[in-house]
Amino acid sequence: MVTLSRAEEKLKRLNRIGIALSSTRDLDQLLGMIVTEARAFIGCDAGSLYLRDAEQLHFVVSQNDTIRKRLGEKAEKALFRPFSVAINRESIAGYVATTGENINLADAYEIPAEAGYSLDRDFDKRNNYRTQSMLVVPMKDHGGSVVGVLQLINALDEQGAVRCFSTEDEELVLSLASQAAVAVSNARLTKELKEAHYDTIFRLAVAAEYRDEDTAAHIHRVSEYSRVLARAIGLESEQQELVYYASPMHDVGKLGVPDAVLLKPGRLDPEERKVMEQHPLIGARILSGSHSRVLQAAEQIALSHQEKWDGSGYPNHLKGEDIPLFGRIVAVADVFDALTTKRPYKEPMGIADAMGILQKDAGSHFDPAFPQAFTGIIDEVIEIYSKYQ
Amino acid sequence: MVTLSRAEEKLKRLNRIGIALSSTRDLDQLLGMIVTEARAFIGCDAGSLYLRDAEQLHFVVSQNDTIRKRLGEKAEKALFRPFSVAINRESIAGYVATTGENINLADAYEIPAEAGYSLDRDFDKRNNYRTQSMLVVPMKDHGGSVVGVLQLINALDEQGAVRCFSTEDEELVLSLASQAAVAVSNARLTKELKEAHYDTIFRLAVAAEYRDEDTAAHIHRVSEYSRVLARAIGLESEQQELVYYASPMHDVGKLGVPDAVLLKPGRLDPEERKVMEQHPLIGARILSGSHSRVLQAAEQIALSHQEKWDGSGYPNHLKGEDIPLFGRIVAVADVFDALTTKRPYKEPMGIADAMGILQKDAGSHFDPAFPQAFTGIIDEVIEIYSKYQ
Repeated sequence: MVTLSRAEEKLKRLNRIGIALSSTRDLDQLLGMIVTEARAFIGCDAGSLYLRDAEQLHFVVSQNDTIRKRLGEKAEKALFRPFSVAINRESIAGYVATTGENINLADAYEIPAEAGYSLDRDFDKRNNYRTQSMLVVPMKDHGGSVVGVLQLINALDEQGAVRCFSTEDEELVLSLASQAAVAVSNARLTKELKEAHYDTIFRLAVAAEYRDEDTAAHIHRVSEYSRVLARAIGLESEQQELVYYASPMHDVGKLGVPDAVLLKPGRLDPEERKVMEQHPLIGARILSGSHSRVLQAAEQIALSHQEKWDGSGYPNHLKGEDIPLFGRIVAVADVFDALTTKRPYKEPMGIADAMGILQKDAGSHFDPAFPQAFTGIIDEVIEIYSKYQ
Repeated sequence: MVTLSRAEEKLKRLNRIGIALSSTRDLDQLLGMIVTEARAFIGCDAGSLYLRDAEQLHFVVSQNDTIRKRLGEKAEKALFRPFSVAINRESIAGYVATTGENINLADAYEIPAEAGYSLDRDFDKRNNYRTQSMLVVPMKDHGGSVVGVLQLINALDEQGAVRCFSTEDEELVLSLASQAAVAVSNARLTKELKEAHYDTIFRLAVAAEYRDEDTAAHIHRVSEYSRVLARAIGLESEQQELVYYASPMHDVGKLGVPDAVLLKPGRLDPEERKVMEQHPLIGARILSGSHSRVLQAAEQIALSHQEKWDGSGYPNHLKGEDIPLFGRIVAVADVFDALTTKRPYKEPMGIADAMGILQKDAGSHFDPAFPQAFTGIIDEVIEIYSKYQ
């Protein structure tokens, strides 16, 4: 009676874990959570996870309480070495991925030779650890494909001594691994969809600049500068991501500017300048009327990134906080990048000098607080600057 | 003992249902599956589901075995009437969504007046049905937000007579509803990401045509014609979706064609024609090097949609099956749309006449089999044609 109600309790807990895993959409966070939940559920000292791609298994998570207690969490993380193994029957994880079968070992140092697979003792040697009992299960998704391999090490009894994994453990972990597999597939799909979306946005931006001197690198930098500035002024991560996705499209409206104006080598006369200053309106028109939050933000940015704090910008001569927040952010990022970039007619300005110009124009061109905030994250700015040279 | 092992069996089944729900990414399919699985799990005659948005509950699924047996599945479906209710305590579903509490009624016709909510007997009256026992639970996601409301009607005992819902039923259905809520949130996110992506692709396409006479409607139609033609020639649904997403970008390369050529009113001279015929190469360059399958397909289409089956196309004078499949599909869709569209210098051709031209050019311009296949789905073609006039 007691045993059975314990079994029920376990199954209910398994349901809750399944719901928690399915709710986690960030892939890295999810992978760590799978190992943490599985270890807490069964009670074991260590655990790890391999993720599968077409050809290999990638070792992506490793957790070990003994080593954490001995060295601290930071050192445990520093010890982590990603590596990959082939999908064949020679390694334990490879065997499980190939056959789709569980492996449940009382002692990983006593694997009979006829098994064909063997334990890689490298980790144990390097860290003075003793891997004893092991339960290794495939993470199969709903269609039966092996998405990864979950490895639990050294199950502990109530006194903290190493015990074997029971058949009940095996069944529960296999079920948890199935839920984990579906969650991983979903998180991967979400990641792929987001990447494909960003890539398309980026193509749109690059295409729009096709006739212009601006480059793919300019667009990437403005997008990344905008994101770090958004963080520096205290916006939440969702807003940071939104400005990152939306800002590349700030100049799409240049598509509507005729060659005769856009490509003119010298100074524009007042009439030509008027035509050129239509580009925010054209951009907003291209991007208007979407249900997508990204495109709504992009429309706002396209329309407002040429406005200035003191009202001397265009096209609507907005002043101060009447200029949408994202437009004020992208204005700083865009000007900073223009200053620090080489053009056919000018040499690039140094980063410190460009920061100085932003500061000087705080309150006239820019939101008074933003140049200061941008200077405050100069390390990150330099990193982005260097990445796309 | 027997009861408890039945409880275990139920919990295990619940786990499997959770995995199946999480694996279903298509929102409409998922919503139907939630009601089907919940009804089968508990054993009840009818069930329905409301989906929540910011302001309202939308009635989106209704299943009723009695009516299905009486009238057949087709008639049952035809009886379905979508409607919306306010999120307040006056209706049963509204009460559950507002309070987050379950409602478990032995007889829905005997609700005490002090409950405040009441049953809408409209369905029963219209269909000569008697709603008796009811279990209505909120679908709460992991964060506790109510995503929808699941309604089960007339639980059946083993003899097929209506019984009350037990507290065990309540607990199991609530857990199933949580798993369903997470699955619905995930499927909605996937749907939103896909829509946002398509919308961006579409902007890219429209932007590219900005200087040209082509319109947003042209791009939508080519995209939809390509999808139905892909189905007509037997491609799988994933490939149909891919060509739908990728085909709008077929002409982005026109961005690289100077105004003097692109916008010239009369005939192009040979030199200008050469410049114009660069557009597939420019388009492929704009779209090249992506990890996204959609953009890879778009690159292929941009490069090959002006090739002709007999080798007389451009830019690579490919012949027959050397022309990528998607390029051959979009060629048909693109020409058909050009023929049936009004331009400043020409009247639109009728659909039958345009189909005739495709047939005449089968084997010279087009893949020999495609015009026939396209004519075979003329009803769908007409529907798309009419949608974007």
